Amino acid sequence: MSHLDPVSLAKKVRARDRRALARAITLVESTRRDHRDAAEALLAELLADTGGAVRLGISGVPGVGKSTFIEAFGLHVIGEGHRVAVLAVDPTSSRTGGSILGDKTRMQELSRNADAFIRPSPTGGTLGGVARRTREAMLVCEAAGFDVVVVETVGVGQSEIAVADMVDMFLLLLLPGGGDELQGIKKGISEIADLLVVNKADAGMKDAARAAAAEYKSALRMLRPANEAWKPPVLTCSALEHRGIDKVWAAISDYRQKLGDSGDLARRRAEQARSWMWNEVEETLLRAFKDHPGVARRLPDLERAVTEGRIPAAAAARELLDAFLERARVEADGV
Amino acid sequence: MSHLDPVSLAKKVRARDRRALARAITLVESTRRDHRDAAEALLAELLADTGGAVRLGISGVPGVGKSTFIEAFGLHVIGEGHRVAVLAVDPTSSRTGGSILGDKTRMQELSRNADAFIRPSPTGGTLGGVARRTREAMLVCEAAGFDVVVVETVGVGQSEIAVADMVDMFLLLLLPGGGDELQGIKKGISEIADLLVVNKADAGMKDAARAAAAEYKSALRMLRPANEAWKPPVLTCSALEHRGIDKVWAAISDYRQKLGDSGDLARRRAEQARSWMWNEVEETLLRAFKDHPGVARRLPDLERAVTEGRIPAAAAARELLDAFLERARVEADGV
Repeated sequence: MSHLDPVSLAKKVRARDRRALARAITLVESTRRDHRDAAEALLAELLADTGGAVRLGISGVPGVGKSTFIEAFGLHVIGEGHRVAVLAVDPTSSRTGGSILGDKTRMQELSRNADAFIRPSPTGGTLGGVARRTREAMLVCEAAGFDVVVVETVGVGQSEIAVADMVDMFLLLLLPGGGDELQGIKKGISEIADLLVVNKADAGMKDAARAAAAEYKSALRMLRPANEAWKPPVLTCSALEHRGIDKVWAAISDYRQKLGDSGDLARRRAEQARSWMWNEVEETLLRAFKDHPGVARRLPDLERAVTEGRIPAAAAARELLDAFLERARVEADGV
Repeated sequence: MSHLDPVSLAKKVRARDRRALARAITLVESTRRDHRDAAEALLAELLADTGGAVRLGISGVPGVGKSTFIEAFGLHVIGEGHRVAVLAVDPTSSRTGGSILGDKTRMQELSRNADAFIRPSPTGGTLGGVARRTREAMLVCEAAGFDVVVVETVGVGQSEIAVADMVDMFLLLLLPGGGDELQGIKKGISEIADLLVVNKADAGMKDAARAAAAEYKSALRMLRPANEAWKPPVLTCSALEHRGIDKVWAAISDYRQKLGDSGDLARRRAEQARSWMWNEVEETLLRAFKDHPGVARRLPDLERAVTEGRIPAAAAARELLDAFLERARVEADGV
């Protein structure tokens, strides 16, 4: 990290300097204490210029064609006059080495486009930590003038929930047919998906895709309460052949418009901000707890005693908390 | 709370003194600091005598006949020579005033049985707090010689997850037919249910119940991975007419046996104990945080500033944490 103060860096980000943007995101991704301080100062500088984008979560099982879809979608949206940032939340990326968006050969055309910015998932740490850094990267992208931010996630359950908590709407990509008719939906994702898109409706596959869409529609009717204001549309598209993407973007724009008009967008974002703050508190508090030397020293023995049933969970927790808060243990002497 | 020391109270609990049992549970339910100290000492005394019960979670939507089922089930199991404790996790009970199991007219016959013990949900506090007190009440019941512990929960999603984390197996009660064919299953409960029971297979409803069971079976095949060791049976019963309850108990005993033989029960309980300890840590840490005067003083303004988009979530969280840990704020002066 070079010696650039947060105020100057913020100015360059707002001026849409791509190097500054990349550097700002590296800064918010860092876990070093001095970098965190600078990142907070940077975000405080940028905050007034954030919030303007359509924030869109995208998920789907491996093989559904997420990269192809995001590339086709991004190019279409840029063609409509927008600027598109693509971020990712992949808590597995540090373990597997490979990462969604880590492969440089993905989304080649989109990544070369001046109105696109693609950033792989931050690596390392808990899902909470990865999600926090992506949320902050999203704010930086908004301040840099990107008015559509796509947050991609791997299809592994918990990461979708984390992404749903940072976007305005959630798009679930599905495959036509393919054995497990309710793929994706089974994980409770149906409850957070605002739009379902059956991809790979390529030439020769259109009928299968339409049949799959009908099946998903009927499954959704069973799985979701009937009395909701928004009934998630189920569309088909061929990302490979760039067909149907316009209808997906139209549905997104329509939903976004409705959210804004009803005041739900403002409410949703205020609630998200509050929830981010508490996530941040919990994450940081627990990290401070685990890093505390008194806690770290006692933890292995206490954890073993608890799992072996030698001491009650609450007693072990209390001993660790007393060590953390460095208060004297008050012994029970009768009630 | 009378002046009874934890050691004497533990002795009376082990001797199956019902008044001592009720008093011990009142003690573990209390949030007073001196009571918590005594409760921990009590649990430490009792711990060696816990763990012997079949721990069974039961859920189902309102109207499914949970009380009738638990009464018929409890009486059947007592008839087989067991002693049954019925606890509840209902985080809504303090808000609604009414509570599951709060109604004294429920389970009249079971509640008068000398080999049964019924306790309503602790009231007040978070789901985490309610769950913790129920876990500890379960341990007290085990030490008092109850070898079947039923933990009932309302059908509201999160409470099932909390209960699944404290029991050996989870039974989901379902209705025959009734419009929403996938009631319950839609909430991701299918992923934690080890046994599904279609209740109300009363005279004249048997065919409907059997048809519903077949439908659930086929839905489960879609919703669950195919390669699991345990395929949750789908049974039918009429709690009202006391029919089919024997088969439910046989399926529970069968599953419990398999869990024990494979070593999964020991692993599951060790993992649960570890997770209880961390839940306890997080719950207590966050409570200490919110109760801290410096945090409480700053919180309203900071929360408002965050939801109104005036300061970043992370900066607000940091300011609160600094207040809590009473450390000086290190200002960023460039990186």
